[in-house]
Amino acid sequence: MKKSFGGKTLIYPTPVWVVGTYDAQGKANVATVAWGGICCSKPPCVGISLRAATATFHNIHARKAFTVCVPSEKYLKEADYFGVVSGKDVDKFAASKLTAVRSQLVDAPYVGEFPMVLECRLLKATEIGLHTQFIGEILDVKAEESVLNANGLPDIGKIKPIIFCPEIRHYYGTGSRLSDAFVVDRL
Amino acid sequence: MKKSFGGKTLIYPTPVWVVGTYDAQGKANVATVAWGGICCSKPPCVGISLRAATATFHNIHARKAFTVCVPSEKYLKEADYFGVVSGKDVDKFAASKLTAVRSQLVDAPYVGEFPMVLECRLLKATEIGLHTQFIGEILDVKAEESVLNANGLPDIGKIKPIIFCPEIRHYYGTGSRLSDAFVVDRL
Repeated sequence: MKKSFGGKTLIYPTPVWVVGTYDAQGKANVATVAWGGICCSKPPCVGISLRAATATFHNIHARKAFTVCVPSEKYLKEADYFGVVSGKDVDKFAASKLTAVRSQLVDAPYVGEFPMVLECRLLKATEIGLHTQFIGEILDVKAEESVLNANGLPDIGKIKPIIFCPEIRHYYGTGSRLSDAFVVDRL
Repeated sequence: MKKSFGGKTLIYPTPVWVVGTYDAQGKANVATVAWGGICCSKPPCVGISLRAATATFHNIHARKAFTVCVPSEKYLKEADYFGVVSGKDVDKFAASKLTAVRSQLVDAPYVGEFPMVLECRLLKATEIGLHTQFIGEILDVKAEESVLNANGLPDIGKIKPIIFCPEIRHYYGTGSRLSDAFVVDRL
């Protein structure tokens, strides 16, 4: 028997990603988002959604670029903080003592200490309602050498990304490996 | 030191969700997607991306509705299968012996055995490139009573959603609870 919860943004898992941007004056900012996901394979694109009340919303419009950084569990406190306070009020890089690294590919910074980052060029901004979705073309993915697996690819078990549970407002970790994908062609 | 991987759809975590639709003749279909995420709070919306080559793409255009079902680890094999074979070739509900439940709210079916489902009305379809993003307004979220926590809300630890790792092509489980969200207002 299923219970109804009404029209809510309630689904699992949602990611905990940190969006890096510069404002019109060149100040680096970071904001944590859970409203996001990959949205196209060719060109490779990721979509993230922001309210017009945020500094990041205006920064992306100004710079036409953003990064999507994947914090590991180790940076849970910083990731939570980046979603609670506004870049309008606080210099979040200074407050967190994390490093704003200038992307060489797009006009946006990323968090140097985080294990994985996507550098994105703004492709499209769509107003949906309270949130505007920014679709960015992924020009490069970078990952720390310390989080690569034996094949040289990013290992989720080493990156330890965080999961957000909407409504419940909890963070969860990544679990263990279940199986390979795309192998079951009959049941 | 970070290693570059180029422009790829490589980020963690991405979800494993199963999209339920009817075709023009009323045949129920399911397709697994990892390209998706919540994209607006008001109205509550979820976006999922599909290639024009899929049956689900045409079904959503025909019916203006879809469901997003969250399979638990227990249904990993079925979820993988639903992403490998096409509804053009196979009756996936019949093959999997899972139950197509007709939504009372939107013109789409959901997988009765899966613990959580979002019933969505198509709001917008945006061609990005290889994929088209379908944004659905979430009219209702339903969850099995057996997966609710003590407060009557869906418990991710009981739902056990699956995580997909793009490029690496592995499935992972959900880990353990790390902390509450939105609590760190200074570092």
